[in-house]
Formats: sequence, C-alpha cells, structure tokens
Amino acid sequence: MEKRQIQEIKKIIAKGRVLTDSSDLYSYSFDGSFGTYIPDVVVQAKDVQEIAQLVKFANHELIPITPRGQATCLSGGPLPVRGGIVLDMSTMKDLLEIDAEDLVAIVSPGVLTSNIHKAAEKFGLMYPPDPSSSHVSTIGGNLAENSGGPRGLKYGVTKDYVIGLEVVTPQGAIIKTGGRTVKNVTGYDLTKLIVGSEGTLGIITKAILRLIPKPPASETVMAIFDSLVDAGAAISKILISGILPSKLELMDQASMQAVEDYEPLGLPINAEAMILIELDGHPVAVRDEAKHVSKVCMDVGAREVKIPQSQSEKDEVWKARKLVSPAIVRIKPTKISEDATVPRSKIPEMCRRLQEIKKKYNIHLVIFGHAGDGNLHPNIIANKSDKEEMKRVEQAVTEIFQSAIDLGGTLSGEHGIGTMKSPFMKMELGEIGLEMMKRIKEAWDPNNILNPGEIFPEPGQKLVLSE
Amino acid sequence: MEKRQIQEIKKIIAKGRVLTDSSDLYSYSFDGSFGTYIPDVVVQAKDVQEIAQLVKFANHELIPITPRGQATCLSGGPLPVRGGIVLDMSTMKDLLEIDAEDLVAIVSPGVLTSNIHKAAEKFGLMYPPDPSSSHVSTIGGNLAENSGGPRGLKYGVTKDYVIGLEVVTPQGAIIKTGGRTVKNVTGYDLTKLIVGSEGTLGIITKAILRLIPKPPASETVMAIFDSLVDAGAAISKILISGILPSKLELMDQASMQAVEDYEPLGLPINAEAMILIELDGHPVAVRDEAKHVSKVCMDVGAREVKIPQSQSEKDEVWKARKLVSPAIVRIKPTKISEDATVPRSKIPEMCRRLQEIKKKYNIHLVIFGHAGDGNLHPNIIANKSDKEEMKRVEQAVTEIFQSAIDLGGTLSGEHGIGTMKSPFMKMELGEIGLEMMKRIKEAWDPNNILNPGEIFPEPGQKLVLSE
Repeated sequence: MEKRQIQEIKKIIAKGRVLTDSSDLYSYSFDGSFGTYIPDVVVQAKDVQEIAQLVKFANHELIPITPRGQATCLSGGPLPVRGGIVLDMSTMKDLLEIDAEDLVAIVSPGVLTSNIHKAAEKFGLMYPPDPSSSHVSTIGGNLAENSGGPRGLKYGVTKDYVIGLEVVTPQGAIIKTGGRTVKNVTGYDLTKLIVGSEGTLGIITKAILRLIPKPPASETVMAIFDSLVDAGAAISKILISGILPSKLELMDQASMQAVEDYEPLGLPINAEAMILIELDGHPVAVRDEAKHVSKVCMDVGAREVKIPQSQSEKDEVWKARKLVSPAIVRIKPTKISEDATVPRSKIPEMCRRLQEIKKKYNIHLVIFGHAGDGNLHPNIIANKSDKEEMKRVEQAVTEIFQSAIDLGGTLSGEHGIGTMKSPFMKMELGEIGLEMMKRIKEAWDPNNILNPGEIFPEPGQKLVLSE
Repeated sequence: MEKRQIQEIKKIIAKGRVLTDSSDLYSYSFDGSFGTYIPDVVVQAKDVQEIAQLVKFANHELIPITPRGQATCLSGGPLPVRGGIVLDMSTMKDLLEIDAEDLVAIVSPGVLTSNIHKAAEKFGLMYPPDPSSSHVSTIGGNLAENSGGPRGLKYGVTKDYVIGLEVVTPQGAIIKTGGRTVKNVTGYDLTKLIVGSEGTLGIITKAILRLIPKPPASETVMAIFDSLVDAGAAISKILISGILPSKLELMDQASMQAVEDYEPLGLPINAEAMILIELDGHPVAVRDEAKHVSKVCMDVGAREVKIPQSQSEKDEVWKARKLVSPAIVRIKPTKISEDATVPRSKIPEMCRRLQEIKKKYNIHLVIFGHAGDGNLHPNIIANKSDKEEMKRVEQAVTEIFQSAIDLGGTLSGEHGIGTMKSPFMKMELGEIGLEMMKRIKEAWDPNNILNPGEIFPEPGQKLVLSE
C-alpha cells in the first residue's frame, strides 16, 4: 500500500485506531490455523458509518480488506493473504441487548459468544450455538464461519439462529437483511448466504439472533467401550431410539491418553473409546432418557456406563472432553485440526479409515468430536519445522478429505474453508458447483477486495504445510 | 413460441408429456393466488437429464420456464407470467426413501409433503414442516417457497430441514448442493439460497431432508378470551415462561363465526379470540406444561381454558382451526390471503391495526394464524368482479404491508413474494438490498429464463387486483 492511502485511511478512522507499527502488524498476521501474512495496516472498527466509508475507499483503490474477530479460526479465514487492511471487528462490541418478549438478542460483532450465553440465561433463555472457543471467540467470527459446537446435534449451528443482519457491502453500502421475525421469505435469503461466507461477501456490523427457552434440566451419561466400532454402533442406536441428545461426543484412546498426560482424571486409557451424552429438557424426561441411553450402551457391549449425579460430577466428566485441545498441543507444537464430516451412519467406517491413514503415514492422529452429527475432529499433531513430517501430514490431510467425500460427507462441518481447504473445493463441489459460488462472489465483489485468497482456490493450488 | 420450438421440445421430452391443448394450457394458468396466465406449452417432468436438456434448449432460445408443483401457492410463484414453458414437477415423484440411520429422507420434488410425514412416522421419525396444504402440496413447491406451518414456532420452516439438493441450473447443468450431513460449511450455502428462491435460480430435482425423532406425546390447550388484546398478552406470557409450544394458533371472532356458519362446532362466537396451543415431548413433561400454560391464560384473564383429554377431543379442537380456510371462501368467492409477519411482541398492536384497516376500507377481514411466531394470516374475502370493492382491497393490502414493516416485520412469513408482493419489495428491502438480490439472479440467470416476472418488480409496478 502507498503512504498516501494510509494517510487517507487515517482521515476516515478516528485517531488511535489505525495501526501501522510492525509489532502490531505482526500480531494481526496469524489465526488458529497455519501460516503468517503481514497486513499493510490494521484498523480497529467501532462504527458502521466509518466502516462503510473505509470499504468505499478500499473498493475505489482496490485495497484488500480482511475482517477478523479474535482470530481463533481454524481454517485461515482471518488471514490477510493478499496484505492490505485487516479490519479488527473485536473492538466493535458495545451492543448486547436481550429482548425477552421477541426472544431475540441484538449484538455487535465484537461481543464474545459466551457473553451472549450469559446475558440470555439471565432471562431464562438460551443461545444454543456453543463452539468450544465461545469464551474467547466473537459472535462476528462465529457468524463469518457459521460455527457449530457440541449442541449442534440437537439445536443446529450458528446459521440456524441468525434472523437478521446489518452488513456493509463490498461497495460500502449499508444494508439490512432479514429482521426481528423468525419467519421471513421476502426474496432471497441473504442472511443465510452471508453467514458462513467467511467475510468474502460483506462485513457484518450487527446481528439479530433467535433465542429459545433454556431447558430446565440436563443429565449426562458416560459410556466406555473396548472397541471404537462398538462405540460407533452405540451412537447410531441411540439416535434411532427416539431420543435426540443435546450433545453426543466421542473421545478415542489417543485423546484420552493425551488428557491423562496433561491432567490425570482417571480416564480409562486402556479402552478404545469413550462417549459422553448430554440430555436436556424436563427433569422427569431427561432422567428417563438417561436410563434408556444407558441401556442402549450396555446392550451394544459397553464396558461401563455411568450417570453422574451431582453437578460437580457432571462437570468432571465434561472437563475431560474440554481438555483434549489444550492437551494434544503439548505432545508436539503444531496442530492441524480438521472437521471433515460424514453422514452419521458412516462414523464407524470413517473411524476405521482414519486409523488406517494414521498407520500409513505414521502420523500422530487423535480422534474426538461431535460424533452424534458425524462431525469428527481428526487432529494431527506435528512439528512444522520437520519438513519431512509435514510432507506426510499434507498427504494424510488430503486422504482424510477424500475419505470423507467418498463416504458422502463434506470437507468442513463447522470450521470453514479459508485458506486451508480451498485446494480441495472442487473435490466436493465439482467444477460447476464451484463456479456457481464464484458467480455470486463476482457479482457482489467484482474488485475482489473482501477477504481475497479465501475459499476459492487459485488454478492448480495445492495444500502446502511443508514450506 | 414458434412451432419449431415446440417440435424441438417434443424431441427432448418423451411422448405424451408435452401438452399443447388449450384446455391443458388453461389448467396450468393459475395457482392459489390471483390472475391467469396461459403458457405456450406444458412439460410434465420425469427425469433430471431430460430437464437439464430442456433448460439448455430454453436458455439458448430465450424461452421462459416456470416450474410448478401442485400450484397451491398463495403468492403467484407458479404463474407463467411471461408465457413459455410450464414445467410440471408434480409428475416427478418416484423417490421417497427414509434412511433412519442417517435421519434423512431423500425425495423427488413431486412427492406430496404429507407422504413424507407418513413415511417418516413409520420409523418413529418426524419431518417437522407442516404447511396447512401438506396433503395436496408437493415438497418441491414447499422448497421453492420455503413453506412454514403451525409447527414453525418450535421447529422452524422448510429451509431448516433441507441439507442437500440436486438442482438444474439456468444453463442446464446439474449440480449438487450440501449433502447428507447436517453440518456443512464448504463454501457458500447454495442450499439455503435456492430454497425459497421461488424457482428463479434453479429447478430442484431432488432433496435430502433432515428428520428428527417423533416426540412421544402431545397435549392441547384451548383458551377463550373476551378481548383480542388479552389473547395477545397471553401469547407473549406463554412464550417467556420457559415453554416452547409446538403450535400456538389464534382465531379471531370473524374466523370463528365463519367456521360456525360452515360447520357448527359450538365455538364461542361471542368471544373476541381463541388460542390453541399444542405441546409435544415426553408424556410427563407435556402434562406439566399444559397445566402451566392453562394457568398463564387464566392469570391473563381468559374466559375459559380447556385441556381436551381424549384424542378425538383434541382432533375436534384442531378441526376448528383447519376449517377456517375452506369456511371463509363461502362468504365471498375471492380470498386474498396474506402472511405479513411481525415480531412476537407486536402481535397485539398488529391486531389493533388490522381492525382499523378493516373499518377504514370497509372490507371483510378475518384474522387467524400462527400467532406464536408473529405470522398472522389476515385474509380478505371479496368478490373480484366487484371492481370498486377490489380497489378498496388493493389499498387495504398496501396498508397491511406498511403496518407490518412499520412494526419491524416482513411482507411475507411463509407464502413467498411471487407476483402478489413484488411491488412492495423496496418498501422492506430498500433500493440496495433489492439490488444485491438482483445481482445474484443476473449472475446465475443472465437470460432471465427461470420464472421471469416473479419476486423482482418492474419499475413503477403496483398491485392491481381490480382489472
């Protein structure tokens, strides 16, 4: 970028919120995935009018803009791969209003998702999407990536709870999509198009989220299996038994081992798998359902089933699941976190293929995740300075994606495409499917200024982790 | 259209499924809304490859194609307003597969929605969207219009249950969007863009629908109010009490009167409003919730509250609601059925404004509908041969839309825009909001062959019912 352009930006944005120091630029150059890209300038967002003016200027001058929240993204969405402006939306966090009568929350993009959870609960309400990062990630980032979470099984993902948006278009106009009503079929659904578009179609400056009554009670069931395949069978059986758990999580032996090494919790590390189930609803209903789920697990051949009684016992059980991510990065410093997702019935087969890939490429692979909706998290732990290992990781990742697609699944269940998965888009969508997406991008952002280099692959682009 | 073009179509489509008799053309010229438009030719669809070839030909020759299901549409979506080809999708109905393990249904567009309900129930599963027309409308039509229904309150609308589509693009290519997984964030959400696009972006030839376990029990509560405003207050109170009913329906005095005249059921026709609530879930939970809802209604000042015990008593109560539509068309032959939707908290105010509009224009207005989600159905009953009355209806409709938008609502909650509401699009979306939608249409269908004349208004277009 030219000096003149940065001067112009300083005229648009109030003092102190335009950063150009190299240390500042560096802190905005990475996210929770892979790679470092230094922007030319960072702008901290506060006001929609200011953002609109900034985008207008950038569009006129053909300067890339990459909006970002807290950059916990696991797919590279907030990386300024073409330089230009990083627009920090985490500073735009003034609005968090709960309207209990309309059952909605109205929020600024920079609000932390866990703060929405807390605010809704004060009114006996619930905002269901619960990405594991919710205590550090912003709702704006969740919206951009259409984040999921354990409760996705019963309640769906971020998109299912967004009914209205305020958006700055790539030309710097401010539009409103949807509104405060849960039903709206007035023209094309721009709301659901923009949610999950990873900052490539517009900058979200406000959102209206649907809330639901918070279920009054919950129960947890923990089941331990000697065989991973049996655990998969139990999951299928639970889901066709007429019960829809709020969470149904899986941990394999390697993830239990990692957690035990990190913090000893007494996990059954000699078992192949553990599943954790949460049921929520009416107190009598969830007690009945917990018993039923236990029986299904025993029938399928669980080694042990436990229904923790007190809240602290329940917390202890869920703690194991929460510790997987921090635990595994202690093994080796580089974590490649995937979220390839398969139809529920293909979970056992996907587990089998993942074990094969692990052996074939001699990689450190850990399997855990939201098994109830087929959204596993195969995580590869490696060391990025070991080029030879990273080559094997590249091949393993490619094979994981191919397996998910062969089984009728998808590249990404909840993390998004970003830079990490764009080389594989055609594998899933085909030439024309991808082209129909590109047509929307080109019609909305002909100058390609909003988050360029994301989602859409360059011709011949391949995944490179080893350079 | 030229004779040559029809000859070409007959080469593409197998014998007997290309109709050109004037009586056939007439039967494809209307839907459940207003106006008659005679197509040049009708093609009965059977096979995706055939449809792809037909669309390719139409795109090359610039012939409009209007796909339609059973044409129960209330907004004009299946009307061939520019002539050309009507593509009857109701004949493409061979596929209705339930995969109980993956919790999905895979269906052809011509399958009746009620047949999906029945097929899912055989496996103890449920396809939640339940438009009142489900016994006569096709899933393809429901997908095109993103249909709602009473259960929308708790379970959402059609779009919330579509996870994958097969679509013929305006250029005649066959693409797949989404898939069999409930989570999928691979690129833009074309599935949710196409659902509700009213046949203007592609022709849906197959759909993968998400199913849920069927709740084991349900209870019904009926509450009668002397004042419509009290009924509105009760609705708000129920919704913030921590209970999410599966249905929450309202009938005003005029709709009860119409039903009583049509079939005497002993409805309280001297009351201003009746609300009907359905709760579903665990047997103990729904019994508790029914008691709680009854108490809320009594506290707000209901004249009478009833919890029907036997299934036949429950059916009787719901019959009243189902008879409203057939009953009101007996009063006068022309029914203008609206679905302007407001935020829940604005239901009492919207009811007040509707009463005012009724008086001001001296029209026969009946109010009923899905009050729990703000999706009222103000229906105007008139006689289309009475030009003077229809002028008043035009003005009243315009004022109903303006009221909904003034209260933060939308033109359409579940019926779609079609031809009936396109003149009002800018009122809700603004110039640029509408333009961003148009950009998608133009990028996908530059020749404007798919369902032209729908959704997007001509410059200066007004609602005309009086000609």
